[in-house]
This record gives sequence, C-alpha cells and structure tokens, in this order.
Amino acid sequence: MKISARNGIKGTVESVKLGEVMASIKIKVEDPTLITAAITRESAEDLELSGGDEVKAVIKSTEIMVAK
Amino acid sequence: MKISARNGIKGTVESVKLGEVMASIKIKVEDPTLITAAITRESAEDLELSGGDEVKAVIKSTEIMVAK
Amino acid sequence: MKISARNGIKGTVESVKLGEVMASIKIKVEDPTLITAAITRESAEDLELSGGDEVKAVIKSTEIMVAK
Amino acid sequence: MKISARNGIKGTVESVKLGEVMASIKIKVEDPTLITAAITRESAEDLELSGGDEVKAVIKSTEIMVAK
Amino acid sequence: MKISARNGIKGTVESVKLGEVMASIKIKVEDPTLITAAITRESAEDLELSGGDEVKAVIKSTEIMVAK
Amino acid sequence: MKISARNGIKGTVESVKLGEVMASIKIKVEDPTLITAAITRESAEDLELSGGDEVKAVIKSTEIMVAK
Repeated sequence: MKISARNGIKGTVESVKLGEVMASIKIKVEDPTLITAAITRESAEDLELSGGDEVKAVIKSTEIMVAK
Repeated sequence: MKISARNGIKGTVESVKLGEVMASIKIKVEDPTLITAAITRESAEDLELSGGDEVKAVIKSTEIMVAK
Repeated sequence: MKISARNGIKGTVESVKLGEVMASIKIKVEDPTLITAAITRESAEDLELSGGDEVKAVIKSTEIMVAK
Repeated sequence: MKISARNGIKGTVESVKLGEVMASIKIKVEDPTLITAAITRESAEDLELSGGDEVKAVIKSTEIMVAK
Repeated sequence: MKISARNGIKGTVESVKLGEVMASIKIKVEDPTLITAAITRESAEDLELSGGDEVKAVIKSTEIMVAK
Repeated sequence: MKISARNGIKGTVESVKLGEVMASIKIKVEDPTLITAAITRESAEDLELSGGDEVKAVIKSTEIMVAK
C-alpha cells in the first residue's frame, strides 16, 4: 500500500528512548540535522527501532510549517 | 522567541501554489528530496513566500512518524 | 516499509472532491459511518483515488481524541 | 456544543495505560480493528476512562491519511 | 458527550471564508488576539458558522507548541 | 525567523510536569482559561520552562477545531 503522506526524509536512528506510553526517536537526517519523532512506545517496539536503523521520517503536509 | 517545535530542516522554496484558503509550498530540503507544506494562504502571503526563498520546514515532534 | 502510524481502518472511497490545494476524500468505513480525509490534491491525484477504491484511513495515535 | 471535528467512530475501550504525562487508550472499533489514542493522562482521568466504556474515537479531517 | 481535547478558548467569529474544500474561520478570542482555524468547508457549513457567532476554539494538547 | 503558524496566545506558565519522554505545560492564557501543551520533555528542558514564565501558546491553523 502507498500512503498519502509522502513527505519522507531518509535518515538513520541515533537513539531510542522509551517512556511508559510514548517513545522519542532521534533520527539523523543529514549532517548535522537531527530530528525527533514522538511516537507511541508500542509503535517503536513493533518496528523494533534501534540505533543505526535506516528509516524514513514521514510527515503529512498539513503538519509542516514554514519559517522564513 | 524560541519555539518548542524545533525540528527544522533547511531548504529552498521551489514553488508556491495558492488556493482560496490553503497554500501548498514545495521545499527542496536536499537533493532530491522535496517536501510539501500545506499552510493557510494567508500565512503564505504574510511570509511573502516565493521560489528561491531560503526557509526552514518546522515540524512538532508529535507529528513525525517513522517508517522502517 | 512499515509505518509507525498503524491505526488503519478499512473502507471504500465514496467520493473525491478536488480543490485547488486540498482534496476531500469521503470513506465509508462501515455502515453507516463515513469519514472525511483532507489531504493535498496532489496526494489524491498521485494515489488516483476515485469512488469504489478499497483504501485504509490511517491515523497517528497522537491525533485521536476520545469522547465519552 | 457541536464540534467541527465530526469524524467519530464508535467503539469500546479495551484498555487504558497511564504514563506520567500521556495515556494510551485502546479502542475496539469493530472486530478485529483496534485503534490507539494517545491523549494526556489528565484527560484520560477526567473522562474516567476504563475498560468496557462505550466511547467515540474523534479525529479532525486534516489528520486522516489515505493508504491505497 | 465530553471530549478529551478540552483546551477550549471562547471567542467570537469575525469572518468565515469558504474555499472549495477548506474554510478559514477567524475567531477573536480576546482583544486583540485573533486566531484562525482551518477546517473543512463542510464542517463550517454544518455548524452554520457566521460572523458574530459565539464559539470555542478547541485544540488537542499534543498540537500546542510553546514559545518563550 | 518568522513562522507560518502564527496563532499565538500569550500566557503565563502555571506548572510544568516532566514525564520520561513527554512534558505537560499548563499555561494560563486569561483568567480563568488554562490550556495544556504536551511537548517533548527535551523541548521543555531546552526552553527551561518553569512556573511564572511569560510564554506564547502557538498553534498551526489546521490544528484548531471550532465548537458552536
């Protein structure tokens, strides 16, 4: 299946921090930019995310702001 | 002021398409990745966005998904 | 690739309305529930969405509210 | 009061997991679909959510993606 | 029904602008603060929003950023 | 830099609660309205948020619902 949210930025997982409900995933998208995804802990576990994984940060267009 | 949403990805505006209420801003963040921000037309006009502008795509962490 | 936003609800596209920037997709998820996705027109066109398509409405957990 | 976000999907609370700040609410919306709402712990407590509650998952249209 | 997103800010509708798919609702929440909600045109029509209406701007906590 | 999300509501931080991954920031925006922002713990720490701080709650227009 193909998803409508196709803003995808390739990166590598730097770190995974698991809270009780949420998890914080740091993704290095290109030197030196590091972005943080806050997803549910359960999703992080289901994807078995860990440092070094090749991933994509995916974002729906309506969630992207522009700063100038 | 500094904002809590600090996932910022630098890029260059490729195109701006204005609808009646919303606007679609295409931003080249690094070759060949192009992302699209859907913001209100009014914000696009207030920022006077146009092709070639150096901007940042800004995203709150809770809006970022991870695909692996 | 598998995505962290895995709340997926199967349904059938009832109608697609294209605006200049955004598109409204009505999805029948189970009789008589009809939900509306507002995505960019471009995504709707890229997915070639049209009435009768079998699709999934996908939602990140942090976007779901609960009413009781 | 009536709210503009009227995508509402009826379901039954399966489980409530409270973290320090956030809570994860699993809702069975129709066999076998289970969706997860990540809301603040405080909201979960204010609504006194617990297993078996009849609830609605409510989602703003701009938060719904389509996969095909 | 009571909804988990209970950040509600009272205000008065200043203007309603209908696009094809989306609508922009300007709400005066307290002098001189004016906020803009981008909702679907259909929701704006279903709520019969028009200037002078007493409304509430409702926001899920995970959508609120903090600037300092 | 100026950001496209310019719905900004001035207020004073009432309390900051840190979870492992997320933080809950209560902001008094005008008596008696109190709103809650759920941001990452890291952002809360980077902004050094604490009670009494003058802040702005910032919200993208597509995240604001209207209740009438």
